[in-house]
Amino acid sequence: MRAVRLYGTRDVRVDDVPMPTIREDGDAIIQLAAACVCGSDLWAYRGVDPIAEPISVGHEYCGIVQDVGPSVTKIKPGDFVVGSFFASDNTCVICRSGYQSGCLDRRGMGAENCQAEYLRVPLADGTLVATPRIPEPDLVPHLLAASDVLGTGWFAAKAAEVGPGKTVAVIGDGAVGLMAVLAAKELGAERIIAMSRHEPRQKLALEFGATDIVAERGDEGVARIKELTDGLGVHSALEAVGTQESMMQAIRATRRGGHVGFVGVLHGVNLPGGELFMSHVHLHGGPAPVRAYLPDLIARIMDRRIEPGRVFDLELPFDQAAEAYRAMDERRAIKSLLRF
Amino acid sequence: MRAVRLYGTRDVRVDDVPMPTIREDGDAIIQLAAACVCGSDLWAYRGVDPIAEPISVGHEYCGIVQDVGPSVTKIKPGDFVVGSFFASDNTCVICRSGYQSGCLDRRGMGAENCQAEYLRVPLADGTLVATPRIPEPDLVPHLLAASDVLGTGWFAAKAAEVGPGKTVAVIGDGAVGLMAVLAAKELGAERIIAMSRHEPRQKLALEFGATDIVAERGDEGVARIKELTDGLGVHSALEAVGTQESMMQAIRATRRGGHVGFVGVLHGVNLPGGELFMSHVHLHGGPAPVRAYLPDLIARIMDRRIEPGRVFDLELPFDQAAEAYRAMDERRAIKSLLRF
Repeated sequence: MRAVRLYGTRDVRVDDVPMPTIREDGDAIIQLAAACVCGSDLWAYRGVDPIAEPISVGHEYCGIVQDVGPSVTKIKPGDFVVGSFFASDNTCVICRSGYQSGCLDRRGMGAENCQAEYLRVPLADGTLVATPRIPEPDLVPHLLAASDVLGTGWFAAKAAEVGPGKTVAVIGDGAVGLMAVLAAKELGAERIIAMSRHEPRQKLALEFGATDIVAERGDEGVARIKELTDGLGVHSALEAVGTQESMMQAIRATRRGGHVGFVGVLHGVNLPGGELFMSHVHLHGGPAPVRAYLPDLIARIMDRRIEPGRVFDLELPFDQAAEAYRAMDERRAIKSLLRF
Repeated sequence: MRAVRLYGTRDVRVDDVPMPTIREDGDAIIQLAAACVCGSDLWAYRGVDPIAEPISVGHEYCGIVQDVGPSVTKIKPGDFVVGSFFASDNTCVICRSGYQSGCLDRRGMGAENCQAEYLRVPLADGTLVATPRIPEPDLVPHLLAASDVLGTGWFAAKAAEVGPGKTVAVIGDGAVGLMAVLAAKELGAERIIAMSRHEPRQKLALEFGATDIVAERGDEGVARIKELTDGLGVHSALEAVGTQESMMQAIRATRRGGHVGFVGVLHGVNLPGGELFMSHVHLHGGPAPVRAYLPDLIARIMDRRIEPGRVFDLELPFDQAAEAYRAMDERRAIKSLLRF
């Protein structure tokens, strides 16, 4: 089968690799409906770590179950399923508390070939959620978005206690930031300030429910948000970048007693304790427990209430995976979808 | 009147100073029932900042109202009142959200002479809470504790979502840490692990409701807590120290999805973003909104349901303030009370 693999910095190729097989009793093999590239794939693509031999990339997936191991009981061949970037048993005490991405037996799906034609999913019963019917083809991008970026934006909103009457700022206009806008809208936020300086992303943010756009960044961005909120700052800041500047922007844009939900993978960030102490904000984030939200997200998509797949602004044949990465790296695309 | 003032590093003296007077329409003047020294007073005492001229110290107070400004309506001369270290209007949007210590018009009481015979309290209507009757003399230490250390420990427990069924760790065995133990007990925690290596403090922690004592610190302390919690860590860690080591201990002792409530004033702390991200903990803390809890805390004290004043293990005449500080600095006392 074909699989995308990373050979070195900015060197993405489509290889022929062996088909995945059932290795543990709880495994499932699924035929993927499409594949896609995540903003966080760009860290490896840009060479954050040296690469000795070709590595698998990607961690988002949905498709049709082909085969299941002997202990799998909740899904069956023929089901259309969606999973998350951490496989999880969904039964341990951490899963039951709503943190499936912190499952005591979690398996990072980055170790499998998720940008490929077929995929092995461990802990299938806990990880995969079947759709109520085989989705119409135009729903596939939306379901693929649910696998990570939508679920991650949703967690940002949940972690920041977004709800009716709240004023929200979203820091980051990548796919996750845009999904955070959509999540804030769905969760009833009264006002959603999207921070973006890119016209096409501003437009999409407005379509997803943003009420205000702030193009300024850093301290200027904070000042602008304060102006828009009677000098108080927002109730909830959703951080979807992961840099020192963006985290400080989120903390400083939040009113005393407010909430910061952070889902951008933090790189080289150190939070100054004294400032955090005086800020009175709540901080919560990390790898999103997407599995917790999948039943709800799938229902919203299957009922055609939300269209998260609109975040894909580039569709390419699978063999053009290199261009899919390049376009995102150069910010020509928000998020790339690969069709088989 | 007499007031304690700090002249320089470890140089505490009792001075004669002018009586405070009504300066703003919302002020009250109260005759203090007793005075006390806070662990956080030791930062200045130990010379964290240079001192050019004698400065006021202390920020905890309770006593009888002597006089009120023309706009004060909620309290009157003769009332016994308790206030917090931030005066607050209790009407702004931040106060109404439960963060009176973040009041848009807050005034730090450290600027007044709180270790003195009489005290000016600004924003008296918002700041002061009257007791339902003049308290019996033996209740005064408990009410004085409510002014800061009890309210601060209470906030640590609230910020860390302590409640029935929860397992809690308290980091820090100073007065605030011991009050956090009491708060966790009152709020229904199932198990309370107090981290302390000092026998008298361990004993008091057990009396306040601790179920386990851990004497180890740092990574060893974390390992011990993991042993006590099936390898998971606690639901809620209450941080009452404020150092890099104690904050990391709190974060690392908390299970994924759990809560850290931090109330030790953070000094020189930098939180590593990557570790925080992967930890999945909630972080919340800062200067405690004691005012929010005072009605409840006063009721518990007046009904003799709790005895937070037991944290005072040294009582001295007011003129021996220097010894009150020295005993705490040398860890001979947990917390010192000064009687007029």
